[in-house]
Amino acid sequence: MNDNDTILLDHGAGGKVSHAMFSELILPLFDNGLLAKQDDGAVFEVPAGRMAFSTDSYTVDPIFFPGGDIGELAVNGTVNDVAMCGAAPLYISVGLIIEEGMKVFDLKRILQSMAGAAKKAGVRIVTGDTKVVPRGKVDKIFINTSGIGLLPVGVNVSGNGARPGDKVIVSGTIADHGVTILSEREGLKFDSDVKSDSAPLNHMVKAVLESGHPVHVLRDPTRGGLGTTLNEIAVQSTVGIRLFENRLPVRGPVRGICELLGFDPLYLANEGKLIAIVPGTNANKVLDIIRQDEFGKDAVIIGEVTDQDPGRVVLETLIGGTRIVDMLTGEQLPRIC
Amino acid sequence: MNDNDTILLDHGAGGKVSHAMFSELILPLFDNGLLAKQDDGAVFEVPAGRMAFSTDSYTVDPIFFPGGDIGELAVNGTVNDVAMCGAAPLYISVGLIIEEGMKVFDLKRILQSMAGAAKKAGVRIVTGDTKVVPRGKVDKIFINTSGIGLLPVGVNVSGNGARPGDKVIVSGTIADHGVTILSEREGLKFDSDVKSDSAPLNHMVKAVLESGHPVHVLRDPTRGGLGTTLNEIAVQSTVGIRLFENRLPVRGPVRGICELLGFDPLYLANEGKLIAIVPGTNANKVLDIIRQDEFGKDAVIIGEVTDQDPGRVVLETLIGGTRIVDMLTGEQLPRIC
Repeated sequence: MNDNDTILLDHGAGGKVSHAMFSELILPLFDNGLLAKQDDGAVFEVPAGRMAFSTDSYTVDPIFFPGGDIGELAVNGTVNDVAMCGAAPLYISVGLIIEEGMKVFDLKRILQSMAGAAKKAGVRIVTGDTKVVPRGKVDKIFINTSGIGLLPVGVNVSGNGARPGDKVIVSGTIADHGVTILSEREGLKFDSDVKSDSAPLNHMVKAVLESGHPVHVLRDPTRGGLGTTLNEIAVQSTVGIRLFENRLPVRGPVRGICELLGFDPLYLANEGKLIAIVPGTNANKVLDIIRQDEFGKDAVIIGEVTDQDPGRVVLETLIGGTRIVDMLTGEQLPRIC
Repeated sequence: MNDNDTILLDHGAGGKVSHAMFSELILPLFDNGLLAKQDDGAVFEVPAGRMAFSTDSYTVDPIFFPGGDIGELAVNGTVNDVAMCGAAPLYISVGLIIEEGMKVFDLKRILQSMAGAAKKAGVRIVTGDTKVVPRGKVDKIFINTSGIGLLPVGVNVSGNGARPGDKVIVSGTIADHGVTILSEREGLKFDSDVKSDSAPLNHMVKAVLESGHPVHVLRDPTRGGLGTTLNEIAVQSTVGIRLFENRLPVRGPVRGICELLGFDPLYLANEGKLIAIVPGTNANKVLDIIRQDEFGKDAVIIGEVTDQDPGRVVLETLIGGTRIVDMLTGEQLPRIC
């Protein structure tokens, strides 16, 4: 397949042309023994234990953006969702829905990103499916990834695990992905290094869990941002969460764009950040471990879990007051991921 | 959510409205302890052994058709792909991509179909994701399902397992799904009972495997039809496959529509049929087991595996000649599944 070719309906028909695309384009990039068997699914051995299973569809617009593309996002997103269950992600499935007429060059870039992201995360893409739909029936390309992973013995993290006295850690600056997509889509060209934070978080999670320090909640604040995710946790755990505005890590240019356009960084998506809620006595030790990870250098403690106002998130503002941080109401930005 | 409401971008934003849709619409239909936890993924115990993992995206047009709809198709399709690996499907993930403006009534119908199909197959929908994209960016609704299942000890089925002397069984009439979609889409109103064959095949597979009769290949001939799937097997197994036209089960009305419109039933999709390739000595016993299943009543032996012309499928025609059945070249019908 040449870079200048375009994707035809035939590429999704399951016949000769589909097979040629699989053999020439997909298999060489994702090469591994399991995918190569070309059966209806992949078969592999698993040990006895607990498994995590997660899925996400990606419809981000634009499909290429500073710091990543839809392919990288799709792999990292599912790697992270599996990791947030406390599991070590192992195998990923990929479902491509492509618009007729897409340039092979663009598809190849996306697939290369997926292969690179899988390598970086240490997961294998073992099964997949490609559909091509007529022009205008989908916007360029949508990607679903599902993933499975194994939980270490003794690990129990869940959104309902937060307890009063716990500290809330965020692994780095917030709103980078959301602001990047927003800027690209609106054609805003800021003279800044704003880019998506898309990154795999499974190695960071592994290091934290292997340290033996107890972890109550792990969550990645994607769609809906930090504000919405913390609200979910407050409700699931029936606790209050108190945040300190002066500790929220937001890059200068990101803050500037948010102020200019009237967006609140608390509600903008992150694609390479996690929230860890851990007992107060161990919080600094967990923070140190997170900071040692390539994607956790800017981690900070941003708040604490309380027994006041269960189900509610409160922000202590810079000027000393407090305001309620509600769950996102309304759509800040469609097709953010 | 009222039936007359429409789906808004907010329903996919991850905030309050998304949560309300999950709690009011999705959770009651798919109710099970795992989904209700609302974490980033589902966590469950697995025994040591071999697992199958498969994924498929569904873009069928129209989304409702005689014999089923996109929701039922999406569950059965992945149940069947996992079953074709020789595994017993257990858990299913669902990724919905919905066009803004869809009627809640239509979405509910689709979700109800999914819940019904899951129940019938005996699988649990344990994790999911909902995206809503602006009008015109996707056509109504696309659904991805992924599934995992466990392989019984000793079962080894794969597309590369066919051996000369094996018989080829098909579990019922072919081309029903393809002809149904074709007729609906073209607005053809035939006075006939043509309808999709969408069905779960995992119970049939279980009965065959538990009988202890050796099975070399299991495949469901969906996109590309029987002709393409048999070509894949002939290539993977490096064998020839000989079919007998007088044994191919095609319903009268389906044959009529194919003749009228110039379609070959060998290349039209099936959504509730399997091909079983088994040693000749056991073929009649396996056929009997398949025929006892609700969806296998019309099963027949349609051909045999040979050592001639490896990689090729040959059809012995009604008039006594032979013709090569090639893999599907070109798109017979886009968005068939």
